[in-house]
Amino acid sequence: MRITALSGGVGGARFLRGLLDALPPTGEPGATTEVTVVGNTADDVTLRGLRVCPDLDSVTYTLGGGADEARGWGREGETFTTAGELAAHDAALGLPPQWFALGDRDTATHVLRTRMLADGVPLGEVTTALAARWGLADLGVRLLPATDDRAETHVLVDAAEAPLDAASVRSPLAAGLDAPPGTHALHFQEWWVRHGARPLPRAVVVAGAAAARPAPGVLEAVATADVVLLPPSNPVVSLGAVLAVPGLRDALRRTPAPVVGVSPLVGGRPVRGHADACLRAVGVPATARDVAALYADLLDGWLVAPGDEHGDGPALPGAVVRAEPLLMTTRDDAARIARAALDLAADLAADADLDVRRRSRPTAAPAAHAGMVA
Amino acid sequence: MRITALSGGVGGARFLRGLLDALPPTGEPGATTEVTVVGNTADDVTLRGLRVCPDLDSVTYTLGGGADEARGWGREGETFTTAGELAAHDAALGLPPQWFALGDRDTATHVLRTRMLADGVPLGEVTTALAARWGLADLGVRLLPATDDRAETHVLVDAAEAPLDAASVRSPLAAGLDAPPGTHALHFQEWWVRHGARPLPRAVVVAGAAAARPAPGVLEAVATADVVLLPPSNPVVSLGAVLAVPGLRDALRRTPAPVVGVSPLVGGRPVRGHADACLRAVGVPATARDVAALYADLLDGWLVAPGDEHGDGPALPGAVVRAEPLLMTTRDDAARIARAALDLAADLAADADLDVRRRSRPTAAPAAHAGMVA
Repeated sequence: MRITALSGGVGGARFLRGLLDALPPTGEPGATTEVTVVGNTADDVTLRGLRVCPDLDSVTYTLGGGADEARGWGREGETFTTAGELAAHDAALGLPPQWFALGDRDTATHVLRTRMLADGVPLGEVTTALAARWGLADLGVRLLPATDDRAETHVLVDAAEAPLDAASVRSPLAAGLDAPPGTHALHFQEWWVRHGARPLPRAVVVAGAAAARPAPGVLEAVATADVVLLPPSNPVVSLGAVLAVPGLRDALRRTPAPVVGVSPLVGGRPVRGHADACLRAVGVPATARDVAALYADLLDGWLVAPGDEHGDGPALPGAVVRAEPLLMTTRDDAARIARAALDLAADLAADADLDVRRRSRPTAAPAAHAGMVA
Repeated sequence: MRITALSGGVGGARFLRGLLDALPPTGEPGATTEVTVVGNTADDVTLRGLRVCPDLDSVTYTLGGGADEARGWGREGETFTTAGELAAHDAALGLPPQWFALGDRDTATHVLRTRMLADGVPLGEVTTALAARWGLADLGVRLLPATDDRAETHVLVDAAEAPLDAASVRSPLAAGLDAPPGTHALHFQEWWVRHGARPLPRAVVVAGAAAARPAPGVLEAVATADVVLLPPSNPVVSLGAVLAVPGLRDALRRTPAPVVGVSPLVGGRPVRGHADACLRAVGVPATARDVAALYADLLDGWLVAPGDEHGDGPALPGAVVRAEPLLMTTRDDAARIARAALDLAADLAADADLDVRRRSRPTAAPAAHAGMVA
């Protein structure tokens, strides 16, 4: 079986680990030989000249067994010696404190990636090289960036609410954005980490997405999959940003494989992170049904928490909705949820009405997602 | 009093710390207000994409109180977490082990420098910014790189003795060197650190030196000094490389200030490091007099260890030779030696015969130094 999954960061990574737990071990009869993960690269950021890919690294570290589970980001057993030195330098120069501390173990990843990219190696090949350290291939996992091109999520905010200073991210992509007077574009990481996703966004856009191309292997992985999964990742800045890469959304609409998503909301609240703030930013109510509507043009099955099956909100004629407890507290929870998603996909693959329902799906991306392509 | 000193790495840095100890504290009447250090940049190297300036950092760390005294390089209390991770990545990819481990504290220096250089900031300004962390200005010290341009020492060796591999330094400057068949150019750091200065050098050249310009402030610091000092740094790859920057040697010949050097050899053996191997590499016997001859066109005074005053070797008509115990074991030793150098400089400044002796100096650089400019 070939499974292709889109993914954001930690939430997606934990779902994917559950997926691997739910599959028969590699080598057994009928074992899955390939899980292809299409990882979000739109929250990538250059900090101190080092190229950081938080979502790709979260997937690699989590599946490879090197993630800090309690903190929810970075490496287990991490130290911050270099970061402390950098802070001492900033203080000596009277610079504002940095808001993004890179751990010493994590820094090795960024140093290697930055050097390889500077040598002209595409991000996809860099990601494969980094995954070698973590044995992802032995797990039957292939991690691909959504795109090798640079496209980064930015949030338009009132300039007074989050002024730019010497500790701000300076992405060249921000220069091309059209910010109304009194507003400016913050890099997603600055909005999310430095400002706790608090300044009210006027818009969320993936700067550079319009010119980005899917990384080698991505479209094929979607087209030739037996199952396509959308983990409970952030529907705006994670999966929305993956779908902002031209060609990807169309591939998901056309794949013969059933496309099954898992709601990132339980009773209107995000399982983790700031999905609610991101949904508000693009004018979408924080309900499981409204999130599903963001994928309405490509979704065949939708797993929601019990109690979230019904309620008001947009119609979802193309998708079968099924309830399953979605709180992903333990690793076993993740495996159970992944198994439920695979079961739903299997039922859909055997369902003669799949194509009938597909013809009732809208044919265009919803406005909230379409507006993110910049 | 304005003192200008050339410097290599640790040996030079310890001499300079002694010099500061020997001077009246800043603020006292007659206190020295400025010590300008012209640091060697020819052993700079790009490792994992990070720009490393070992000699500049040795001066900064040693004077700022952050150097590891026992190990003789890098930062005190250093950890090597990032380096360990990089080694794990190399092993996973089947790459040869790296031979240059960057410490976690040290890495902060290189990350900041690499980013500033990438932003177009000249090395001199970068060095000033890094020195701010260590309070060098408060000590009355200004550290300048010999040049802002990239010029790196390379050693021509038999290719079979030190093959190039994936762990070799790949400096673009090496491409311009003319290596006879069966030989190739090793970056100085690779020869020195990886191979322990063992493969017999056919030549030592500073690739890029011919096109390098002195960094802003360097020529002025030499021309307007009251005293110019040559610490007991390596006469080939440290001071020889500084003097390979066009214009610098001429400024030292012309400065009205007495130029006083300290021999790096005691009884024919280097006080520290591989000065003997480097001298052999350029065909110069390892004696205090032969080292002085490398500076014969610019030297007014030469401090040697007792017993090294006489002996065979080239004549030194331009310089006054004085004996002083030169083993620099303690910080007090360094202060005493620096004081002896300052005393010799004061005597020379008051000596009516200084200009007479200067007229007997050779007018060209010795062949061993002249051959290093590539």
